Amino acid sequence: MKLSSSTSRDSLTAPLFADAAIDSAVDDVAFVTAMLEAEAALALAGADVGVIPSQPAAAIAAACADLEIDIDALGRDSVSSGNPVVPLVRLISAAVSDQARPWVHYGATSQDIIDTALMLMSKRSGAAILGQLRAAADTCAALAEDHRDTLMVARTLGQHAAPTTFGRKSAGWLTALCEATDRLTTVCDDRLAAQLGGAVGTLAAFGGQGDAVVAAYAERLGLQPAAMPWHTDRQRVLDLAAALGGAAATTAKIATDIVLMAQNEVGEVTLAAAGGSSSMPHKHNPIDAILVLAGARRVPGLVATLFAAASPEHERATGAWHSEWQPWRELLSVTGGVTSRTSILLGGLDVNAAQMRANLARLDPAALADALDPAGWLGSSSAMIDRALATHRERGGHNR
Amino acid sequence: MKLSSSTSRDSLTAPLFADAAIDSAVDDVAFVTAMLEAEAALALAGADVGVIPSQPAAAIAAACADLEIDIDALGRDSVSSGNPVVPLVRLISAAVSDQARPWVHYGATSQDIIDTALMLMSKRSGAAILGQLRAAADTCAALAEDHRDTLMVARTLGQHAAPTTFGRKSAGWLTALCEATDRLTTVCDDRLAAQLGGAVGTLAAFGGQGDAVVAAYAERLGLQPAAMPWHTDRQRVLDLAAALGGAAATTAKIATDIVLMAQNEVGEVTLAAAGGSSSMPHKHNPIDAILVLAGARRVPGLVATLFAAASPEHERATGAWHSEWQPWRELLSVTGGVTSRTSILLGGLDVNAAQMRANLARLDPAALADALDPAGWLGSSSAMIDRALATHRERGGHNR
Amino acid sequence: MKLSSSTSRDSLTAPLFADAAIDSAVDDVAFVTAMLEAEAALALAGADVGVIPSQPAAAIAAACADLEIDIDALGRDSVSSGNPVVPLVRLISAAVSDQARPWVHYGATSQDIIDTALMLMSKRSGAAILGQLRAAADTCAALAEDHRDTLMVARTLGQHAAPTTFGRKSAGWLTALCEATDRLTTVCDDRLAAQLGGAVGTLAAFGGQGDAVVAAYAERLGLQPAAMPWHTDRQRVLDLAAALGGAAATTAKIATDIVLMAQNEVGEVTLAAAGGSSSMPHKHNPIDAILVLAGARRVPGLVATLFAAASPEHERATGAWHSEWQPWRELLSVTGGVTSRTSILLGGLDVNAAQMRANLARLDPAALADALDPAGWLGSSSAMIDRALATHRERGGHNR
Amino acid sequence: MKLSSSTSRDSLTAPLFADAAIDSAVDDVAFVTAMLEAEAALALAGADVGVIPSQPAAAIAAACADLEIDIDALGRDSVSSGNPVVPLVRLISAAVSDQARPWVHYGATSQDIIDTALMLMSKRSGAAILGQLRAAADTCAALAEDHRDTLMVARTLGQHAAPTTFGRKSAGWLTALCEATDRLTTVCDDRLAAQLGGAVGTLAAFGGQGDAVVAAYAERLGLQPAAMPWHTDRQRVLDLAAALGGAAATTAKIATDIVLMAQNEVGEVTLAAAGGSSSMPHKHNPIDAILVLAGARRVPGLVATLFAAASPEHERATGAWHSEWQPWRELLSVTGGVTSRTSILLGGLDVNAAQMRANLARLDPAALADALDPAGWLGSSSAMIDRALATHRERGGHNR
Repeated sequence: MKLSSSTSRDSLTAPLFADAAIDSAVDDVAFVTAMLEAEAALALAGADVGVIPSQPAAAIAAACADLEIDIDALGRDSVSSGNPVVPLVRLISAAVSDQARPWVHYGATSQDIIDTALMLMSKRSGAAILGQLRAAADTCAALAEDHRDTLMVARTLGQHAAPTTFGRKSAGWLTALCEATDRLTTVCDDRLAAQLGGAVGTLAAFGGQGDAVVAAYAERLGLQPAAMPWHTDRQRVLDLAAALGGAAATTAKIATDIVLMAQNEVGEVTLAAAGGSSSMPHKHNPIDAILVLAGARRVPGLVATLFAAASPEHERATGAWHSEWQPWRELLSVTGGVTSRTSILLGGLDVNAAQMRANLARLDPAALADALDPAGWLGSSSAMIDRALATHRERGGHNR
Repeated sequence: MKLSSSTSRDSLTAPLFADAAIDSAVDDVAFVTAMLEAEAALALAGADVGVIPSQPAAAIAAACADLEIDIDALGRDSVSSGNPVVPLVRLISAAVSDQARPWVHYGATSQDIIDTALMLMSKRSGAAILGQLRAAADTCAALAEDHRDTLMVARTLGQHAAPTTFGRKSAGWLTALCEATDRLTTVCDDRLAAQLGGAVGTLAAFGGQGDAVVAAYAERLGLQPAAMPWHTDRQRVLDLAAALGGAAATTAKIATDIVLMAQNEVGEVTLAAAGGSSSMPHKHNPIDAILVLAGARRVPGLVATLFAAASPEHERATGAWHSEWQPWRELLSVTGGVTSRTSILLGGLDVNAAQMRANLARLDPAALADALDPAGWLGSSSAMIDRALATHRERGGHNR
Repeated sequence: MKLSSSTSRDSLTAPLFADAAIDSAVDDVAFVTAMLEAEAALALAGADVGVIPSQPAAAIAAACADLEIDIDALGRDSVSSGNPVVPLVRLISAAVSDQARPWVHYGATSQDIIDTALMLMSKRSGAAILGQLRAAADTCAALAEDHRDTLMVARTLGQHAAPTTFGRKSAGWLTALCEATDRLTTVCDDRLAAQLGGAVGTLAAFGGQGDAVVAAYAERLGLQPAAMPWHTDRQRVLDLAAALGGAAATTAKIATDIVLMAQNEVGEVTLAAAGGSSSMPHKHNPIDAILVLAGARRVPGLVATLFAAASPEHERATGAWHSEWQPWRELLSVTGGVTSRTSILLGGLDVNAAQMRANLARLDPAALADALDPAGWLGSSSAMIDRALATHRERGGHNR
Repeated sequence: MKLSSSTSRDSLTAPLFADAAIDSAVDDVAFVTAMLEAEAALALAGADVGVIPSQPAAAIAAACADLEIDIDALGRDSVSSGNPVVPLVRLISAAVSDQARPWVHYGATSQDIIDTALMLMSKRSGAAILGQLRAAADTCAALAEDHRDTLMVARTLGQHAAPTTFGRKSAGWLTALCEATDRLTTVCDDRLAAQLGGAVGTLAAFGGQGDAVVAAYAERLGLQPAAMPWHTDRQRVLDLAAALGGAAATTAKIATDIVLMAQNEVGEVTLAAAGGSSSMPHKHNPIDAILVLAGARRVPGLVATLFAAASPEHERATGAWHSEWQPWRELLSVTGGVTSRTSILLGGLDVNAAQMRANLARLDPAALADALDPAGWLGSSSAMIDRALATHRERGGHNR
């Protein structure tokens, strides 16, 4: 047989678990690109502040923009130092004049470049994830509006409980999406910082100008300046991890409900894009929901790995920092995948209101009557829907 | 032998891993107390709004305050329904008049009471944890101030790297503590909400007054009112889990550095309260740091369990909600333990500045000279310390 | 209010998540008892081999059997050394004559006693867990036998797929239970070892008799002798953790299927002991299944914590070992709870064969006919059931 | 800039965290190859048993061997069905004659092919991992032999404790490696099974010949035949996950000790291949050890994800099965990386016996004398080393 492919573990299954646009912000090309942007911004920031002469700085930035790099070779060359910045700096140095060379990577350490690159990737993919969360919220808002009065049975502990509406259920999804969006927005706006500390986090090379260089560097990259290098203070990473984890959990909540409502005996929703089977062509699998659940199941382990890495030794960890690189990017990728697919999933949802009503009728009226208030079971449902929609609109969300 | 004790798994080791004051806010007595407070607030809130007559409401609140409960028996009686609210409501009902009885637990579901109780426990233990974080930060601030010029070697990847100061290192700890404090403060102020949704999250029993009851209930309990019942939207729980996890990681960072500096060959710090050994009386174990590390190591698993529980089915989970109760309380307890012990640890730290200087001297000056900028390795250290101290003071922290 | 209880976090919810008999093998009394047994066995083993005089050894063993201990106080006294063995040894020493005193804890270190105690608790609770797994397997075997020809629809990806039988499904549960039982049996028989290494794992105090003491010590305790002290080789702990985690996962598989089959629209099983609701008396919650799922959801985090602790520093960890104590016991307790409740759950299962048949009829015969082999969909089901039953019987399981 | 690379997230950092040979057994090409091998074996096994005519079976096997596949396109084509088997079967079907076409994928379901492929990848990479574990063990055996009498200080809780030898420490590493090897060997020999159950696990298409087909299929693939399809009984996956997790933990134990011994103040070992720094050319970073620690830190989260996936719904999970694919392969890859790098690390270890002796001298003799038995601190060290070496030799290990 003859199989052509990148040889990695991801190109076969990426279409299932990732969103191509979001993934292009966290893949290897994005990683190397972001490292080069960091090196360029470093040189230019030095020039902004006057600690690096302008011409070498411009030459370095130009070289970073023009480099041709074989990423596989770069990876192989990174083994002796344990990270790709060392060979990358060699490539940049080789591409500039003798005069500019001493100013390449000036004042920085490898972790500055890698952490900054990871933050740039987070900023870009984070924006795309927020877009997917907002798209999903828009659809939930429309469902809440359209189905404000669509009666259905609420289920607790797996059993029929009492009446609710599909609008109320959708408003619950919407509220969770808004919360996840708020949290991730805050992190993307306030907590994604450039990293610059130099070899041991003292910005030694810049003398008294360290703060000014950090400010210029962060400004050029569109990231926050950090009051203190965060080489071994990973609270920002945890903020991001938790925000992504919360977003993924929200999508899994929605997909869980949809899988349950799509069961043959329940029949309350069907999916426009039902999946086929290799052995049973008659099946209509809720494959988008399945894939959301599959992706989201990997998230708690990734979050835990990042929390476990957040107590690094001294001024650079003995392994914990290196252990963040893949889970960090994978968390962005997987969260991108599940948010993107959730907006597809919601967009393709066919709601069977008649079946919802029919399932509700199974509730034993006599038993209910003993237990329930005569005021009616919908209570504040409609008011809750209004409130969820208002919150959504305040955040710029669209309603029909 | 004759062993007297509670028979649980926690009283033997609680003194090692928990803080007695914080634990008293999350133990079983605290849990049952908080559930009774929730039931009382529910009745009184109903009266505030006019959906429950005043007299029964007052009687219920009085009964909740006066009940005598055997918690072990309450636990046993909870098996048939799967949660302790059902037998607790029976006890309250038995303690009030026939007239008041129909209003006991009126309009609520078990999850309303348990979630609210967990939030009350979180509010109270959270405040105590914040107190410990601030105490630790105060000590770090003093260390940063006192050791601004105490030279020591920075270590990266386990190896001597370049000079820094112990003040800079302490300022790094301080900054992480401030970040953890900020995040937990935000959660405690904004995200700890009362839960009230009734059987299926529609506030059915209160007719059009549901929102008003929620507001009064939350107000009486000192918790936030939620725009929507969060029975199956666990984003608030995740916010709390992440904030606690971040705080614990910060303490582990500090303890890691201290264990490494306390090594015999390094000798840069010693601990006032060094621990003994059952086999080697000559040893001076950094036991407070060890216990911080031990506690913090349990945190990522607890955080992951809560993230994995955050996608519950329909209107009440089929297991995920029940799975939160112990990890949630354990996370509060363990984080309380590690923050409390970190403030003890920092308070008992003896810094050996002479040894720090001596270890720095091992750095090969010739090798350094080749690599390092003549401007001096301390760079922006002092400015960073100033900034960390200023941030600390802005949050009400104390400096000497 | 007046609440009487142990003040721990476990007595309220223990009846839900633990099995009283199993928990009594891992609670604090069991822990202290096991440590005393280890100290007694240590003294007697020394006498067996001749490195400790017989009379002091007997006196120490007698003292260990007779001690009266306030466990709460023991816990408090353990803070200065960081573990309860140091104050426990003081108590034993105080209870013996001057002549015997030097031989108390002779040749051992705290970790020897605690690890051995944890292994003893594992041995005892492990046997009880195996008993529950076997009881559950017996019930599955009966279900497989009784429902060999009970037709039902198989469901894949949440959708009706093709016919199977409830006997085949039960045989699948049975097979998983047998696998989990086999693995845990192997661990309990072969991998639960006594720990004895002395201060640094060289058995220094026993001169050339170290191996003989280890053998006698293990023999007296009913544990395996280890070829090498395993203070910082935690492979045995991982074997146990994985075996418990596998058992818990199996119970969760069974409970998952039952919760799904018990849905109102599906109605294929009901539970004898259906749980009540605080707000909806008409409900019949599958509470035993819910509690199994709740307990099992805590297991992956506990397993991960133990795997993360398995790379300790040098000759005793700086925190990782201490971090094992609670998760290890909790894993035993939770697994005990879910296996015990699963055997209750299976024992109370009412199978509605008519409804199974009715649900199967929903399958579109025409669609099926296109896709399916005419040989019939039950294929090897019956042979598989026979094989599962045979495997079960080979392990001493009972069939009707 | 112009960056050439596969666009995945793995080719940049694979050289740091993976072993190229092992990775080639789990990458996308390996995955598709293994699926094709499974499809070929399925057809041939059917012919072996007589349920598929010989000629079509041979044609299918030939087509599987000859196919040219664009894996990226295969990935994209898998979205509608949610797995790559559906489009793969289409490709095979298109490559065979009309006569053979009905027999392609005959009797199987997608999960049969994917699970079998994952098992094949596990078998192959598992063998390579075992080779690396044995290579590391050989080096540890040599270190144990060579340094049987090399005195050094043992350290407990981060502090000097008492004398040991570097041979004893190496024998501890060796024992853990042997345990990890034994466990993984057992899993590779006994628990890696072919999967074949057909659509719902009844082997419906094969009538009474199901067992015979399974036996022939497994035989052809070099995997175990399973007594029962394990579509929703994931105990085998857990066995593998635990074995890999145990192996990774062992490598992390070794790397932890080496990083600590390589500290400048300790100086007991140096690494032949010390890593450079982008900012400090004078540094000699123990980069191989750092990378082992980094890889191993990702393992507990992966193990937890697989344990959490092990309770799938009914006859095929609604997400949990799909969630296994990447963590399963990643666990193989990461464990391959850390075992391979550990054997490199150990092979390049320079032991500084003089410095070990010098560090030991810091122990206060007077304090020691009070606490320690005069018999000498080495106790059973030498006997333990002998035992560890004997165990190693019994497993075919090499000693000098």
